[in-house]
Amino acid sequence: MILAFNYFNKIQGRKLCQKIAVVLAGCGHLDGAEIHESTLTLLYLSQAGVNYECLAPNRDQHHVLNHLNQKEITEKRNILIEAARIARGNIKAIDTANINDYDAVIFPGGFGAAKNLCDFALKGQNFNVQADVLSFAKQAYQASLPLGFICIAPIMISTICGPNIEHTLGDDQEMISIVNNLGGKHVNCKVDEIAVDEKHKIVSTPAYMLANNIAEAATGIEKLVNKVISLI
Amino acid sequence: MILAFNYFNKIQGRKLCQKIAVVLAGCGHLDGAEIHESTLTLLYLSQAGVNYECLAPNRDQHHVLNHLNQKEITEKRNILIEAARIARGNIKAIDTANINDYDAVIFPGGFGAAKNLCDFALKGQNFNVQADVLSFAKQAYQASLPLGFICIAPIMISTICGPNIEHTLGDDQEMISIVNNLGGKHVNCKVDEIAVDEKHKIVSTPAYMLANNIAEAATGIEKLVNKVISLI
Repeated sequence: MILAFNYFNKIQGRKLCQKIAVVLAGCGHLDGAEIHESTLTLLYLSQAGVNYECLAPNRDQHHVLNHLNQKEITEKRNILIEAARIARGNIKAIDTANINDYDAVIFPGGFGAAKNLCDFALKGQNFNVQADVLSFAKQAYQASLPLGFICIAPIMISTICGPNIEHTLGDDQEMISIVNNLGGKHVNCKVDEIAVDEKHKIVSTPAYMLANNIAEAATGIEKLVNKVISLI
Repeated sequence: MILAFNYFNKIQGRKLCQKIAVVLAGCGHLDGAEIHESTLTLLYLSQAGVNYECLAPNRDQHHVLNHLNQKEITEKRNILIEAARIARGNIKAIDTANINDYDAVIFPGGFGAAKNLCDFALKGQNFNVQADVLSFAKQAYQASLPLGFICIAPIMISTICGPNIEHTLGDDQEMISIVNNLGGKHVNCKVDEIAVDEKHKIVSTPAYMLANNIAEAATGIEKLVNKVISLI
């Protein structure tokens, strides 16, 4: 039985009962996590037979936008509580998460990644990654966990992991300059492809930085999820 | 050129430039549209090369639930504005939609389908379908458009389309009784399968009525989407 267990373990190429953390920035592409990117991440993890747990900061969103007219609404919403809509309750506060419980971490995109996880959308190149996110993500990187970043989320890679890591933010010249100024090595990447830094176990894909529709975003996200799993 | 156009038309087995309406009940499985079911519907439509437009009622949700602790929040949210988070803005009010613009209609589930599109979750068997939804859906059925219903949404089928239509709400005995009392013909259906009433062009799948994870829900939803398209 043990032999069979080990054999199964070996042919799977990874330990059983893996769990991947998916860090959500709210619920909605203008002020939170991009819903399609987040849901597709969960889909491909589930289809690969890998467990996941969503994490989110337990604090208010930067702001709330009406997704019909893109105007600000004068109300407060909590990132964790809104992200729970995507997670169907399978979520907890990122500052209560123990990195030892996870085998990899994936960050979907959406403006929330650049407003709630870091403040790139507000400050540009001189942005900061929020302390709760930075602490968790740094621990994950230092523990050699594979990290996946989708859409705008790769903007955080140099701050979290340090310089000289290959990653993509699509093919926009301004974004390429910013990535390189931050110390990263930008790699142009088509919407249905992934950029992989094998040495540092960092995977990224443009998704809605480039995608014209959900099917285009899905192709890159599926590749990212499977690559992250393979790097565990 | 016309010949080539018609030939392409024929080999596709359906007219070009199809557009399918996806009716959303908000954003979040406890008080709105189930996010995974809605997103997967859009994914499989997009992967099939079919255009979609989301529709939602332009009125307040029945209530707002905190998806972390499942408790009610004393605030108001508009169904259309919240559903726009899933639709990424590709959405309009259902009472402004013209049925002639669509080739089929799909209703994802979530409690919102039973609280905002109809009031089954509140009144049980003596529920009503909301006037804006009923008007649009009846016109679609009377125009012989294929209709797809996911999760709890099939509870509306007999009210919209009349009796003797085969459909599924999974395998729960109480739900089966209700469906049959309403005049429907309940068909037991596994999570990864669909129930099809070919004569009336009605397709249904249990999704999160039975699914233990998003991958299980996805299998049935993919079949539903492709069957609905094939019935156009």
